[in-house]
Amino acid sequence: MTVPGVFGESFQRDLYTLFESRRDVRSFKSDPVPDAVVSELVGLTRLSPSVGFSQPWRFVRVDSAERRGVVMESFKRASADALASYDGERAALYARLKLAGFREAPIHLAAFCDDATDTGKGLGAKTMPETRAYSTTMAIYTLWLAARARGIGMGWVSILDPREVERALDVPEGWRFIAYLCLGYPATYENTPELLRAGWENFDPRSTHLTIR
Amino acid sequence: MTVPGVFGESFQRDLYTLFESRRDVRSFKSDPVPDAVVSELVGLTRLSPSVGFSQPWRFVRVDSAERRGVVMESFKRASADALASYDGERAALYARLKLAGFREAPIHLAAFCDDATDTGKGLGAKTMPETRAYSTTMAIYTLWLAARARGIGMGWVSILDPREVERALDVPEGWRFIAYLCLGYPATYENTPELLRAGWENFDPRSTHLTIR
Repeated sequence: MTVPGVFGESFQRDLYTLFESRRDVRSFKSDPVPDAVVSELVGLTRLSPSVGFSQPWRFVRVDSAERRGVVMESFKRASADALASYDGERAALYARLKLAGFREAPIHLAAFCDDATDTGKGLGAKTMPETRAYSTTMAIYTLWLAARARGIGMGWVSILDPREVERALDVPEGWRFIAYLCLGYPATYENTPELLRAGWENFDPRSTHLTIR
Repeated sequence: MTVPGVFGESFQRDLYTLFESRRDVRSFKSDPVPDAVVSELVGLTRLSPSVGFSQPWRFVRVDSAERRGVVMESFKRASADALASYDGERAALYARLKLAGFREAPIHLAAFCDDATDTGKGLGAKTMPETRAYSTTMAIYTLWLAARARGIGMGWVSILDPREVERALDVPEGWRFIAYLCLGYPATYENTPELLRAGWENFDPRSTHLTIR
């Protein structure tokens, strides 16, 4: 940093490359990810923003084959329901997509939001309690980026019944399911979204259009 | 990158520094931020993850002094209500906190989630439609990190009535308010959360504790 507070241009370019290469990974190698690395990545979430400094995210490492199996069954049911909602070519395309890497991913993490936490004393969340879940999401993204910088890929699975996952993982009352995350070394490193490559969807210019008011 | 897919250790260290120095800024210098820079930052959100590649975030630059004023009034009411919910020392501490930088921040952005979008064809959002708001939150965090890398600070204001902001900014039907963002050059660069420095809250070890199941 030569100008105070400003990161160098080379860092900025690498940061954009990190954003671009941060993919939602569904195909993993079987190489293990050490538990210590997982703990370090979860530890880095302390640097994430949170509403009223409430830090409401709670991470669960799912090691039990039985519990993983229950989550996979929830995924299979939800994915079959989703498939039934598409017709024709779209249904055929959906059926060809690989939407999760449960079996190959060495590490399974589940992220919850502790809506019952008193940390932060409710500051900033009175009119918008959903900001606690948003804070949890940013902690997940912190972990995702830090993992990718180390060459570790992550896939976010949301085709699940949240209540089934909460029951399967026997989490404390008040913990709300936010995301199921598969981590491991990616089979391949990609810079374009898989759903773009698969022909499912294109970039939407509305997301980068700035409306003026 | 010497090992394929792995970013260098020096980048990783700088990335952690970026996470650490990404603060929720409430005190800004009056120096302008060029519109082109704001557009570039919003443009970078195309690299953000989204459920089913739905890219549901919509950014609004709020330039109108009148509209800014309506949002500030909503903040004042919500903040007065919040103050009334605290007692004694905690209320006195709340009253001393600076919780937004509306007046000084040269750039005001509002972020919305387009729940009505067909982009992504609903993939991944059938059982968890809230993942569209989570995607919007990650786009905000992408912008936040990219801004900070350039020395630009951001503050996220959530002490607002969401419906009042939607009305004040006259956004299309189906756009749900997620965040009001003040951007500008920070009065000071800090590495510790303001609410920690002010004695409002401490680090919560539960957020970095890994539960095993």
